Amino acid sequence: MPLESLRDSGHDAAIYVKGKTMHYADATLTVHLDAIAANYRLIATRVAPAEAAAVVKADAYGLGVIPVAERLVKEGCRLFFVATLDEAVELRIGLPSATIAVFHGVRFGQEQVFLEHHLIPVLNTLEQISRWSVMAVGAPSALPAMMHIDTGMNRLGLSISEAEALVRTPEKLRGLDVQAVMSHLACSSDRESLMNHEQLKFFNQLRTIITGTKYSLANSGGCLADACYHFDMVRPGCALYGINPYYSGESPLAPAVTLRAKILQIRTVDRAGSVGYGASYAVQKGGRLAVLPVGYADGYLRSLSGNGAWARVAGVKVPVAGRVSMDMVVLDISDVPEGKLTAASEAELLGVNSMSVDEAATRAGTIGYEILTRLGKRFKRVYAA
Amino acid sequence: MPLESLRDSGHDAAIYVKGKTMHYADATLTVHLDAIAANYRLIATRVAPAEAAAVVKADAYGLGVIPVAERLVKEGCRLFFVATLDEAVELRIGLPSATIAVFHGVRFGQEQVFLEHHLIPVLNTLEQISRWSVMAVGAPSALPAMMHIDTGMNRLGLSISEAEALVRTPEKLRGLDVQAVMSHLACSSDRESLMNHEQLKFFNQLRTIITGTKYSLANSGGCLADACYHFDMVRPGCALYGINPYYSGESPLAPAVTLRAKILQIRTVDRAGSVGYGASYAVQKGGRLAVLPVGYADGYLRSLSGNGAWARVAGVKVPVAGRVSMDMVVLDISDVPEGKLTAASEAELLGVNSMSVDEAATRAGTIGYEILTRLGKRFKRVYAA
Repeated sequence: MPLESLRDSGHDAAIYVKGKTMHYADATLTVHLDAIAANYRLIATRVAPAEAAAVVKADAYGLGVIPVAERLVKEGCRLFFVATLDEAVELRIGLPSATIAVFHGVRFGQEQVFLEHHLIPVLNTLEQISRWSVMAVGAPSALPAMMHIDTGMNRLGLSISEAEALVRTPEKLRGLDVQAVMSHLACSSDRESLMNHEQLKFFNQLRTIITGTKYSLANSGGCLADACYHFDMVRPGCALYGINPYYSGESPLAPAVTLRAKILQIRTVDRAGSVGYGASYAVQKGGRLAVLPVGYADGYLRSLSGNGAWARVAGVKVPVAGRVSMDMVVLDISDVPEGKLTAASEAELLGVNSMSVDEAATRAGTIGYEILTRLGKRFKRVYAA
Repeated sequence: MPLESLRDSGHDAAIYVKGKTMHYADATLTVHLDAIAANYRLIATRVAPAEAAAVVKADAYGLGVIPVAERLVKEGCRLFFVATLDEAVELRIGLPSATIAVFHGVRFGQEQVFLEHHLIPVLNTLEQISRWSVMAVGAPSALPAMMHIDTGMNRLGLSISEAEALVRTPEKLRGLDVQAVMSHLACSSDRESLMNHEQLKFFNQLRTIITGTKYSLANSGGCLADACYHFDMVRPGCALYGINPYYSGESPLAPAVTLRAKILQIRTVDRAGSVGYGASYAVQKGGRLAVLPVGYADGYLRSLSGNGAWARVAGVKVPVAGRVSMDMVVLDISDVPEGKLTAASEAELLGVNSMSVDEAATRAGTIGYEILTRLGKRFKRVYAA
């Protein structure tokens, strides 16, 4: 579908109303574009002279692909990766001149859309390579492509033996401008994993077989690892958004989000009892509770129940009380002096004064990536420069 | 903000493009409106003569509030509950003449929006009651309201002692047309919980104190419980969407969603190794894997990794192999005869031929509500009549 008809069909409206339809929300998600920019610069400096691309799939890990990508362009980023064709078309409307590559490759029937929007498919199979090569016949110039080779993750990409066979039949790549050969690390979250070394070894072997192109292996974990992982181009994702790719230890990255909510209701417990579904949290008479309008439908995961999750209210660290509901979470604010709370009081749920995204993830039994990508659509979203 | 300026600002565009921006998605979420209708009829019949309202908060538990509510109107539903004012305004644009009540109540400064859109606040605090009563001064008729009284959940609502005090000062309710007094069950997922009986007892006491209105206690669990929980009006949510409110045991409800995805890539493993992040799943040489374009960013929860989650491919039940990634999940299809797969083959991830939402929830360590509300925005959405 050409750009113009997408605009006419309201497709661009769908993009730009994102985060703007919440006129009355009592919870605000602030996305710190300056932090994302700082994280990008940190990585770009670290990996230079390798090029730092940016992975902005899944709506820039839930933070809003257009504002994030626009800011990264200002920081000098020229190459963006998304997962799907829909994401690529959305990004193309926002960034008419960026280079955009699509991890999931080009499916049968989608070739023309890639051409119209100047999108680069990451070719994962011999079949995709063959089809994209056919598209090059009669094209005024070679068609850009990247090639993904699996070095041990067993997810997307050619097998090493397929890559070797391909090199022996170079006519299969006719008409293609292979701008990069890439692979993906399975265990980069663990610096000590032997898998990293093994994938690195395979990748270096590949470079002796497939020559005359650029090479890319590193995700965020690889960016922060030794220079031998950087090659010509790196593909950071989570690190841009302040997630520690190593899951634990001190993070050099700036946190990219703050989640705050106004208090819906404060209650003083008038008889000893319990809080929330399943009556899992005990409260004494006289205890005080604050109900917040944020729940698991907003991405404040239900698995944050009963795992020491906390927030900050009027400067005081307070625990989550009982189970997270769909649209609400209750805090035990018994330790907050009564005079300190006003009708305008807010709680900070995620941010530098409360749980980091990484801490929330650990408490919820997952990784920061999942916290970010599931942050809900009912918040007011604010993009801080 | 009046309806007209919302339309002009593109607010309604934001609603109606929901689920329509995915032109090229390889995964399809089918919402079975007929199943939702059947579940509504089952409950309405069961609770009659009590009125069956419908809880459509959180975008109808993630399934799309406008198509769901429009269908429920056809089934005779007249009263809808949402959580937030934004949700109410969105629903009002879709359903100009339905009765819409807002669980989170009316916050200071939002009163005029409630009036303009004919929304009914569920009043949870004395302060809200007082403010809404002031709005009634000079109004041509009494202002509709509902009143929420907490009977042991310690979440939203007046305490019982506040309710008793309120009854002793009826002038505080001046100008209000209290259409219902409600409370909420904390433990209705467990039929045997003593908490249900205790909340029922409190609620019946309240009925002797606050008279001359209608009463509502039952969520989905209460709807399927004894008639003594039904009173004048019930508020089913999860049951409408095919979720078993009892978490376990056979469900009388029709499943409301099917999630299918085209296979991105099939790979035959060329040497023994592992699959995915963390290398947690072992594969032998010759094993076959299918990569699907659905991951935890789409609500296929990361906690479905390693817990026996499965899908159906070409009629065969196949396990998830390794960790769920952000945009992908891998299936071990070694047991699927090779000839059975074509380029058009799809996997069913959720539905009657694969995991039910309830089973997926159990495997992921959560409840079906969270699975539904987190189903992603990258799917093609199809509403089946």
